[in-house]
Amino acid sequence: MTVTSPDTTAVGGRPVVPSRGRLRPLGQDEVRITGGFWRARQDVNATASLPHARSWQDRLGWTGNFTARNAASATRRGREFTDSEVYKLLEAMSWEVGRGTGETGALDAQIAELTGVVAAAQAADGYLHTAFGRPGQPARYSDMLWGHELYCTGHLLQAAVARARTGGGDADPLLAVARRAADHVCEAFGPDGTPGVCGHPEIELGLVELARLTGEQRYLDQAALFIERRGHRTLPRHHFGWSYFSDDQPVRQSTVLHGHAVRALYLAAATVDVAVETGDDELLRTVAAQFDRTLARRTYLTGGMGSRHADEAFGDDFVLPSDRAYSETCAGVAAIMLAWRLLLATGDGRYDEVIERILYNVVATAIGDDGRSFFYAHTLHQRTPTAASAADEEQLGFGGGPRAPWFEVSCCLPNAARLLAALSCYLVTVDDTGVRLHQYADSEISTRLDDGREVGLRVRAGLPDDGAVTVRVTKTDDQPWSITLRVPQWAAGAELVTTHGRRHVPVGDIVVYRSFAVGEEIRLELPTRPRFTAPDPRIDATRGCVAVERGPLVYCAESEGEVDLDTLRVDATVPPVDAGSGVEVRARFTAPGPDDWPYGAPRPADDRTRPSTPLNLVPYHRWARGGPSTMRVWLPAT
Amino acid sequence: MTVTSPDTTAVGGRPVVPSRGRLRPLGQDEVRITGGFWRARQDVNATASLPHARSWQDRLGWTGNFTARNAASATRRGREFTDSEVYKLLEAMSWEVGRGTGETGALDAQIAELTGVVAAAQAADGYLHTAFGRPGQPARYSDMLWGHELYCTGHLLQAAVARARTGGGDADPLLAVARRAADHVCEAFGPDGTPGVCGHPEIELGLVELARLTGEQRYLDQAALFIERRGHRTLPRHHFGWSYFSDDQPVRQSTVLHGHAVRALYLAAATVDVAVETGDDELLRTVAAQFDRTLARRTYLTGGMGSRHADEAFGDDFVLPSDRAYSETCAGVAAIMLAWRLLLATGDGRYDEVIERILYNVVATAIGDDGRSFFYAHTLHQRTPTAASAADEEQLGFGGGPRAPWFEVSCCLPNAARLLAALSCYLVTVDDTGVRLHQYADSEISTRLDDGREVGLRVRAGLPDDGAVTVRVTKTDDQPWSITLRVPQWAAGAELVTTHGRRHVPVGDIVVYRSFAVGEEIRLELPTRPRFTAPDPRIDATRGCVAVERGPLVYCAESEGEVDLDTLRVDATVPPVDAGSGVEVRARFTAPGPDDWPYGAPRPADDRTRPSTPLNLVPYHRWARGGPSTMRVWLPAT
Repeated sequence: MTVTSPDTTAVGGRPVVPSRGRLRPLGQDEVRITGGFWRARQDVNATASLPHARSWQDRLGWTGNFTARNAASATRRGREFTDSEVYKLLEAMSWEVGRGTGETGALDAQIAELTGVVAAAQAADGYLHTAFGRPGQPARYSDMLWGHELYCTGHLLQAAVARARTGGGDADPLLAVARRAADHVCEAFGPDGTPGVCGHPEIELGLVELARLTGEQRYLDQAALFIERRGHRTLPRHHFGWSYFSDDQPVRQSTVLHGHAVRALYLAAATVDVAVETGDDELLRTVAAQFDRTLARRTYLTGGMGSRHADEAFGDDFVLPSDRAYSETCAGVAAIMLAWRLLLATGDGRYDEVIERILYNVVATAIGDDGRSFFYAHTLHQRTPTAASAADEEQLGFGGGPRAPWFEVSCCLPNAARLLAALSCYLVTVDDTGVRLHQYADSEISTRLDDGREVGLRVRAGLPDDGAVTVRVTKTDDQPWSITLRVPQWAAGAELVTTHGRRHVPVGDIVVYRSFAVGEEIRLELPTRPRFTAPDPRIDATRGCVAVERGPLVYCAESEGEVDLDTLRVDATVPPVDAGSGVEVRARFTAPGPDDWPYGAPRPADDRTRPSTPLNLVPYHRWARGGPSTMRVWLPAT
Repeated sequence: MTVTSPDTTAVGGRPVVPSRGRLRPLGQDEVRITGGFWRARQDVNATASLPHARSWQDRLGWTGNFTARNAASATRRGREFTDSEVYKLLEAMSWEVGRGTGETGALDAQIAELTGVVAAAQAADGYLHTAFGRPGQPARYSDMLWGHELYCTGHLLQAAVARARTGGGDADPLLAVARRAADHVCEAFGPDGTPGVCGHPEIELGLVELARLTGEQRYLDQAALFIERRGHRTLPRHHFGWSYFSDDQPVRQSTVLHGHAVRALYLAAATVDVAVETGDDELLRTVAAQFDRTLARRTYLTGGMGSRHADEAFGDDFVLPSDRAYSETCAGVAAIMLAWRLLLATGDGRYDEVIERILYNVVATAIGDDGRSFFYAHTLHQRTPTAASAADEEQLGFGGGPRAPWFEVSCCLPNAARLLAALSCYLVTVDDTGVRLHQYADSEISTRLDDGREVGLRVRAGLPDDGAVTVRVTKTDDQPWSITLRVPQWAAGAELVTTHGRRHVPVGDIVVYRSFAVGEEIRLELPTRPRFTAPDPRIDATRGCVAVERGPLVYCAESEGEVDLDTLRVDATVPPVDAGSGVEVRARFTAPGPDDWPYGAPRPADDRTRPSTPLNLVPYHRWARGGPSTMRVWLPAT
């Protein structure tokens, strides 16, 4: 492992700044997304989603909970974790300031105002939570299972780090609040304190990053302590089981992610952080192996994770039903957090694959075009038409249904918002010899290599629709360095065009190492022909089905009533082709049998099949944006 | 519809005594199960399950809640519906007295004692619930959504009816308690009372049967009023949705059972009762159509109902995943209650089919051999080995895992117990011309036909293993009457042997109408060759799979580790054969691919398949009775 030793106190928004690792992440000041698919979403995020989230949090009293009057009375509103939504919003706003494209001044003012609101609720000893510890409220840490106190503090810490790295600097008031809160946590739960853990991991992530920002070793030590403490069933017994709370098994003994998906992914991400900072390579390999098995056996085609609604949990290996696929938006965000940390630590390009997949098929699906409606869960099969959601009604629970403006448990919108605002940080890294491009978007890159030389690139990419990627060198000296391009798994047959000519390049990382000239272009042509994809036969839920993918996108059949998706059979012998704004396959429709007992003697297939007709498929991320519809990703094949 | 006008006050245990209908149910004094599969289970129920349930209810304080001291204090124990478990146990004990084979005296004494305990907790105005209305408790009916007050009262009424019909008679103290409780409910929720409904249907069933027993019209009216009141979303909003509480849609407008399975089935059963008693044939047809569609689209091969753990609910049409199939024991019991009522009303033999299926594959599966452990839910696919359950530990929740001795929500054991104790009532009816045999068990039948003539039969049946059924006439005069036999759907090729010779008989009801002689035998030979069964192709979860059935039994592959059920492929071209105590199929095992991203270009099937070997299957109801095991009902076919 190469120690790249970044300046940990540097301003320049970066969510994760490990002190060592194979790759060094770049900051928002080094990579800017300038156009295309993701820039459009970033702009909607800034102009619609952030104000929308603020407005709902005010309306529901979640920000108001911080004022002493409400917090001390029985009128505190919302679930016990609503503080964290305010912090996630603060974090998202901070990254948005770091992105630096919009009304930064107004955002700065809002952050300052919210910081004041939050700061006023902090106890003298640093404790900060609006649902516990005040007159009329339960005692602090009296409900470690569900209280979410440390969880909320973790998000506060992440928000403060974001603020400090995007203009707030070392003297920002939110950072001061976070340091007091972290000091309190280290005091209360340190080696001489209560030996407890929170029912929801997250504090660990906040502590490590605050340690990275501030250089405070004890924050890192406390994070490590929390991680080692987990898994010993010290939390109370609950019908969800200890696995739900990531407390059934020490993280070092686990072989796969399990239990509540977001909890498990946050914990795994924090464990990577701790392993990196403490040089514990065995722990790092353990988490990497857990994630490997999770990707091989517990991940949806979309990259979504978590197959169970009841406890928002990973299923057993290969239990990946399309119906009511849980695949929470937050689990997608959390999986990107984990994959990104593993990528920085190991340099293994496989992590790029899953980040790309989740971005295009979970994150892009989650948010409505208007930025004011979103999915909490991501089913892969909608059998009865989604109804429109009331624009001003908070949705209870996280079940099926259309994109909703807000949820009682509303983690997903601010979670996606903080990711989108910081998205440029997930595109590019610097390694020993140069610049690595992990995700392609229209972007401007300007950074220093490890040896201090300044380089710059301009990227133009038509993804997800078009596979042409052009990388123009905008700054260089005459010494050699490397530009590493990624040929995704889906892009077999890719070609690279440089000043040296055109050549086929295999899937994986392509290193172009030499001297470059300003203005020189490297062009990567990634085939985006639509393709059939089949599932591992051990996944029972999708046996006999194919899906269609094109480039990084998963496609789906969506019907507003004109097509019966229950009796659809795709002709898997006729490859899918581009057609209009979608992809076309040939499909037949079986005549459904009588509505009778649905089990009987096996019959030959297709004996009542109608002629084949063209069927148009649309990108999964586009579904449910029109009227009420049914939808399926996995298509039974003839 | 024929009005058969039974004597509604007759003693002689019968759970359901409609005043009209195509068929007249017989009582426990008219049908006794004398041996075989079900008698063994009835005996275990009497000697083990009933004392086990009593012991746990005492230990957990559920019976103790009825004493004023506990009920009035903060020490009341258990969930808000535990009263109902005491009532269900009282009902089961009453039917056990009616069965009349065991220590009836000791049971009578226990019933009297528990009746005293219960009666002491009844308020002067008839209200009876241990969690509401006393000092320090929430007010009566302050939580219609979750309070379960009327639900508990419904079970009290059913228990009292059972007691009255099995020896208690009109003067039994439990009946007096029930009448006072019912009078209170009519007062509180009648046309001039609160226009509310309970979050869990059940009161309706109790009220109708109490009306049948006592002739009190207003109990019936109140049940009808509750049914008409439901479905108007008068209960508070909840994240499970109104459908969970059967309050989303008036029962007359619904086309299929939906929402929480037990709630929906109880309500449907009560609606049949009300439709029958009020002569509302349209309402009867509506419920029958709902159940038809439920059987065609929302029922597991086992007859189990409910596919969702999160809200214990029916899934959408054709959403029947084997993994974590919910299929609650209580939903099985409730579906039998509904099917039985529809059978009595319509005489349609299709309802026998589902009753048989549920009995052998849900009810028989639910209870451990020792009668002291049971399944709450019935998965059809266990991927990781079940662990043994601690013998003295209450299981929280109702999730996966082995048969457990007790559950925090412990409705299933007493529910199955009351069904098993009264099981003889579900075997035989009397129609216009004679006796109809619906389920075959070793039994003695002695009844009067509609015209008053006394007839008797002795049945010997080897089911589920052997398909020979012998019916011997034990009492008759010289006038003709009919013996109607059922040839189940699974018994194509059946033969009937009478004094007139042997003949093939088709699936369905076979009416033998003539004069019989005492000692004369009718023999029905039902083929029980094992058979493959395929699912409706619209059921995505089981596409490409077959199951094996034999007679009324569903079979499964169970492995204690020696066989990898993930890679199993059954050769569906080789029919299953009897082998030892099970059934044998030919199976291959595919070599699993690399543990990598599990989606990719379609590959030809079976390119890495090993040679075929015999694979033994066992009856589903036998699974998880040995050591930890994996299991699957649906077997991928080559």
